[in-house]
Amino acid sequence: MNGENKKLLTLTIFGGTGDLTFRKLLPALYNLQETNKLDKQMNIVIIGRRSYTTKEYGKIACDWIQKFSRLSYQEESIQQFLQRLHYYQMDFTNIDAYQGLQAYYAQLGCKEHLFYFAVAPRFFEVIANGLFHVMPAQQGKVIVEKPFGEDLISAKKLNQYLENFFQKENVYHIDHYLGKEMIRNMQAIRFMNPIFQGVWNHEFIDHVEISALEEVGVENRGGYYDQSGALKDMVQNHLLQILSIVAMEKPNHFFGDDMHEKQLEVLRSLKPIDKSNIKESMVLAQYEGYRDEDKVDPNSHTETYAALKLYIDNERWKDVPFYIRTGKKLGRREMEVVITFKQSEPEVEPNVLIIKIQPTEGVYFRFNIKKPGDSDEVVPASMDFCQSCLDFNRINTPEAYERLLLAAMHSESSWFSQWEQIETSWTFIEQLKQFYDETNQTLATYPQNSDGPIETKVLFPDGQHWNKATV
Amino acid sequence: MNGENKKLLTLTIFGGTGDLTFRKLLPALYNLQETNKLDKQMNIVIIGRRSYTTKEYGKIACDWIQKFSRLSYQEESIQQFLQRLHYYQMDFTNIDAYQGLQAYYAQLGCKEHLFYFAVAPRFFEVIANGLFHVMPAQQGKVIVEKPFGEDLISAKKLNQYLENFFQKENVYHIDHYLGKEMIRNMQAIRFMNPIFQGVWNHEFIDHVEISALEEVGVENRGGYYDQSGALKDMVQNHLLQILSIVAMEKPNHFFGDDMHEKQLEVLRSLKPIDKSNIKESMVLAQYEGYRDEDKVDPNSHTETYAALKLYIDNERWKDVPFYIRTGKKLGRREMEVVITFKQSEPEVEPNVLIIKIQPTEGVYFRFNIKKPGDSDEVVPASMDFCQSCLDFNRINTPEAYERLLLAAMHSESSWFSQWEQIETSWTFIEQLKQFYDETNQTLATYPQNSDGPIETKVLFPDGQHWNKATV
Repeated sequence: MNGENKKLLTLTIFGGTGDLTFRKLLPALYNLQETNKLDKQMNIVIIGRRSYTTKEYGKIACDWIQKFSRLSYQEESIQQFLQRLHYYQMDFTNIDAYQGLQAYYAQLGCKEHLFYFAVAPRFFEVIANGLFHVMPAQQGKVIVEKPFGEDLISAKKLNQYLENFFQKENVYHIDHYLGKEMIRNMQAIRFMNPIFQGVWNHEFIDHVEISALEEVGVENRGGYYDQSGALKDMVQNHLLQILSIVAMEKPNHFFGDDMHEKQLEVLRSLKPIDKSNIKESMVLAQYEGYRDEDKVDPNSHTETYAALKLYIDNERWKDVPFYIRTGKKLGRREMEVVITFKQSEPEVEPNVLIIKIQPTEGVYFRFNIKKPGDSDEVVPASMDFCQSCLDFNRINTPEAYERLLLAAMHSESSWFSQWEQIETSWTFIEQLKQFYDETNQTLATYPQNSDGPIETKVLFPDGQHWNKATV
Repeated sequence: MNGENKKLLTLTIFGGTGDLTFRKLLPALYNLQETNKLDKQMNIVIIGRRSYTTKEYGKIACDWIQKFSRLSYQEESIQQFLQRLHYYQMDFTNIDAYQGLQAYYAQLGCKEHLFYFAVAPRFFEVIANGLFHVMPAQQGKVIVEKPFGEDLISAKKLNQYLENFFQKENVYHIDHYLGKEMIRNMQAIRFMNPIFQGVWNHEFIDHVEISALEEVGVENRGGYYDQSGALKDMVQNHLLQILSIVAMEKPNHFFGDDMHEKQLEVLRSLKPIDKSNIKESMVLAQYEGYRDEDKVDPNSHTETYAALKLYIDNERWKDVPFYIRTGKKLGRREMEVVITFKQSEPEVEPNVLIIKIQPTEGVYFRFNIKKPGDSDEVVPASMDFCQSCLDFNRINTPEAYERLLLAAMHSESSWFSQWEQIETSWTFIEQLKQFYDETNQTLATYPQNSDGPIETKVLFPDGQHWNKATV
């Protein structure tokens, strides 16, 4: 790096006393410090409404870091980290306050900006407005948190605001699942292994399952969640993103716009679902007791579980159902992509490849062998590559937020969702919800700590089922 | 089973006081007893030249069983086993002695015969001659041990003798590698896993390696081995059999004649090697110190190591080299089939599938992942299915001789080599040896406990190499 020409980057976090900052961003930044990944002279400016001195905030930050950091607390790294941390008190809804921020930046010698909007989306416009009241627009980069809008219209609006102030390619929509090791690994697994690449199509694959099961309920997020629900909170963003990475054609280059384009093609090829087939394509459900949760409407019809059967209308995925499911209170936390291959013979179990995303990270493969011993019977056997089991990796694998912060600093856009993907997902999900409501489907229920509603059986008229592959 | 109509089977072992009987056949038969796989009334008649009573022989048998049995020595099973064991003293080279044997059979009430010729091939004719001097020919079954002939001519002669007396389908040529768990598993692995079946061809596979490495030298078999050598002792039978199972087209039925036919097609499709390419197709070598071994000619030119590059002239295996190697004193005992796939990119390691035959039995698969952590570098990872690691299997997996004896009792011919396969292998190997000799190739040498001769590099002009795949 050339110190003279390099412009000094400043990371500014709006929402500096919020949960996200304390639990995720500060620990992630400390880990980047501890692993020497931050530019020596980068400043971190924390914006909050409360009156702290930088020193006071630093103390609070240390407490959170000690509690949530992946890497152990090292005095030397903490000191280096605190040196770049600055707390700046302001009310970011007050446009006049930005003059002072601008002066503060000048005092610190900030040249380039990366803003992190760790605040509710309704504040995006006011902050952007404030910033560009005092500095030239179309410069700097911004990271925005999900949810990106509450529906298609609000998402479009948000996007317009942001694109008024930032260049399109400088808006980084965080989808923290995209920072997960095994999601990032998907392209290597698919395209660097001819043995998988050769069978990654409808000729060999019977169906694909993408599951994101949560053990927890809504916890203290009842207010937000009740306005959102599983479709908007999980399917619209995370699950459709993952689906598009699992199903996309091979990009010319693995990262950047090339990949986004291929993902977008998948999302645009999702077979439309309409009133005639909504019933056998989507099941929504709510866990028993949800309506008693804090800040949840006692008559709520918000779904805490969603299961969908989707088809991709192209040659590769001809007639291959993609089963997607996510929900809360499902007795376990588990996210995985399951590729179930076609059976070689009716009575022989299919090959199954599972890409485990969390909590275990790894690859599981079930295949068939002759039953050991005298018999010539064919039975399943399995092999496993457990990446997260290796001690080496527990220490060396950065968490999603570390990667994503670093990626934004380095302008690596492939780690983020692109606006067109978000727009396409919103369009698709909204239509689904509309047909669902218009056809008066009944929201199913399911007991807490169960596998979800039995009603999902309508998705499987051909005898397929949610993965139970273990040997 | 219908006891009334079922004909009583008698197993007669010629060579009842030989090493094979003591170390392999008696322990295998005891294990079949212990696992209740022998027909209740089956007799075992042991033929030997020495004068033992059945009781005396039984004692000796018990000692060997205790030493070499897979399953522990159970008094009850031993007693049941001894009840069916009969020692009959005779000189089987004396044709007049067979009258007595015939009378002995009558006395035991024997109806059907399975003969085991656990003797040197030069005695096959005299025994068969003796037997059919006193009983009708074209009945009964016979198991013959390898080597089946010393060359094509002697093998053909042997076959003619045997087919004079036995029906072709009742001659079981033992190749004990065909009784090994993972060889028997090969068809399930290839044909019951679409993910493997779909890539089992020249489009995906770069090369195949079949290795049978021995740690031992010639030991006390110097006299036999010096007349034979690695080509005749290992390649002509075991390795070409395995190659034909790895490479064959899918049979309509997995076992029996169907499988033999498909194997034979492979052997008949081996691309001829001639004087022009023998040098880059076969390397023979002798370990240092071999000529000092007991009963070995001090000027011996017998090879203790053979490495070959073979091609199969059909659509599936177009331009895919099959590397075969076997040898003694190679520092380790290891037999495996290694499928190396084509690389996805020049700088990315190829996928590798290893079928481990001995001493470990299992399947190993090396694939590529993104390097864990920040990097987008692609690195190899591996998964393993170790069948022999399971305690369950150590106890439950019968040894080759158990399976093969049982298979012969049940007339399951797929467990044995068929005459046409033997004939084709002999023809191929003899031609090779002839061109090798005619072109005055120099026998290479290699140190004991090494990887073999460095001269094998001539087999790999394209940068391939013997498998070193481990991660």
